[in-house]
Amino acid sequence: MTTDSGTRTPIRWGILATGRIAESFVRDLALVEGNELAAVGSRRLDAARTFADTFGAARAHGSYEDLAADPDVDVIYVATPHSRHFEDVMTCFEGGKAVLCEKALTMNPADAETLVAEARTRGLFFAEAMAMRANPNIRRVAELAAGGALGTIGELRAARGFVGPATTARLWDPALGASALLDVGIYSLTFAHLILGEPAGIVAAGTLSAEGIDVSGGATLAYDSGAVASISWTQVAHTDNRASIAGDAGLIEVPSRFPTATSFTHWHDDRVDTISEPVTGHGYAHEIEEVAACLRAGATESALLPLDETVSIMRQMATILAQLGVADR
Amino acid sequence: MTTDSGTRTPIRWGILATGRIAESFVRDLALVEGNELAAVGSRRLDAARTFADTFGAARAHGSYEDLAADPDVDVIYVATPHSRHFEDVMTCFEGGKAVLCEKALTMNPADAETLVAEARTRGLFFAEAMAMRANPNIRRVAELAAGGALGTIGELRAARGFVGPATTARLWDPALGASALLDVGIYSLTFAHLILGEPAGIVAAGTLSAEGIDVSGGATLAYDSGAVASISWTQVAHTDNRASIAGDAGLIEVPSRFPTATSFTHWHDDRVDTISEPVTGHGYAHEIEEVAACLRAGATESALLPLDETVSIMRQMATILAQLGVADR
Repeated sequence: MTTDSGTRTPIRWGILATGRIAESFVRDLALVEGNELAAVGSRRLDAARTFADTFGAARAHGSYEDLAADPDVDVIYVATPHSRHFEDVMTCFEGGKAVLCEKALTMNPADAETLVAEARTRGLFFAEAMAMRANPNIRRVAELAAGGALGTIGELRAARGFVGPATTARLWDPALGASALLDVGIYSLTFAHLILGEPAGIVAAGTLSAEGIDVSGGATLAYDSGAVASISWTQVAHTDNRASIAGDAGLIEVPSRFPTATSFTHWHDDRVDTISEPVTGHGYAHEIEEVAACLRAGATESALLPLDETVSIMRQMATILAQLGVADR
Repeated sequence: MTTDSGTRTPIRWGILATGRIAESFVRDLALVEGNELAAVGSRRLDAARTFADTFGAARAHGSYEDLAADPDVDVIYVATPHSRHFEDVMTCFEGGKAVLCEKALTMNPADAETLVAEARTRGLFFAEAMAMRANPNIRRVAELAAGGALGTIGELRAARGFVGPATTARLWDPALGASALLDVGIYSLTFAHLILGEPAGIVAAGTLSAEGIDVSGGATLAYDSGAVASISWTQVAHTDNRASIAGDAGLIEVPSRFPTATSFTHWHDDRVDTISEPVTGHGYAHEIEEVAACLRAGATESALLPLDETVSIMRQMATILAQLGVADR
């Protein structure tokens, strides 16, 4: 494949696991020029072949190790449940591959720190696939907030949740890393971090299932700036999925579902601007573009998907889970 | 004055204090049949006279004691700052008057309990003027939620706030009881209580002014039912002033400003109903109607403005203020 410059070779993607999020991701991958689906790996060769046939991957591998060893793959997207990320990312690193790993990066901050250190030691690109960070509307919101469009920010709110189907094991099985905070609360926490940075303090409460997984919760984050963030998450209720940022000179409201927003409103000076930045596909295209740009530039970390922020949020989630009484995993 | 029944005598209201909220209240009082503005009291006789002239009160009193002693007053609306409520309500009780007292009822739960006990001992009607409880839309929301229209409720959110003018002493002066929680956070807490009852646990954080008053905060409330409420309040930011209730079968969203809502939406079964109950005036009319109905019925407490709930919320606010590090007042 060539581009209009005539010199650019495509970024060759490997997909690790074949679940629903992997399907959504490769549908968006097909929309991003200069990137191609090169290979897919599954622990079941037949699943890999079906996925490869469906989405046009050149090669199907019957193990993650084989995918990681594929010499014609530049970067691997890891789409397994949280509880497998540490092992699967490490397999990719051992194959010398760059990695974009689904959120939450790991089950605990220590594992996240280990993976980040490993990527840095090996000089491999690594990022958490928090697509929200690359959403053009969320980026614009963050730019406006940072640029003073709201005055001094005093309050932030974000809620993310849904009613998790009882048949979806990764949502209910502790062995698969089930956790509403790690699955959806991470969006609210990441949104707060994008706008306000690292909190000075966190207090949280929530509800656990009989198996000890957190099914819903809320947290208040206090910042040295004086701002306060109220965030919530649930996998047992149809929450409003809104986010807002309030300052002393204005208000930004991001409608449902805020992480994949296609527009937002900015109230200031007694007027309301509705701003809408186009979003490609299901929203994964923008993080794919960012990873491709980093790889072409030889960068091993993305300023848009920063590893240190990912690790900070893993630490915040550990703090919250401890306050909720969830056992370490 | 006679009504269509030809037998109903008007409820004669006295107004204690002449500030902005007293003005809004008496404008709504004029809209409610069977109620009349009989007298106004102020510590400054000229202020009372101006108020009486403006709004058509028969008598102006130059002290709260004189108002409380007025034999032609049935019930007194107390509209002073929080820090004066205890003393002013007691003055009314000593005059044998029924009382509707602005929220927050007192500065601390012990004072609220004392006033409630005093009203009960004397057999006098008493209620907190939390107009939101009587808002027809909020009542309908509570009925729908209690009736199972959302399935099992998992999450509730409510935010109330504004940018408090720097010149408004009652918002900034500790001596006047300044507290964003007592002033506006009480709406979010009361909304949660209306829908979910008394919480099993509360965790809160917030920001204090240099003078030690809470200017903003957030709290997560956990309930024995498994529900979680995320509430926030601020007097330093233009918050979204929304509330929502999320269940496993639907979502209710109350738009800004939720305590005085003129409509709300109910999402369920893949449809959205927009429901709008008419609101009279600025929203005080409905609590005025409720107080009048209680007085006509000889009731000393209102089921719509329940004293035990007011005291419970005073206790919850004390818990939150302690966690925020606000000194007892």
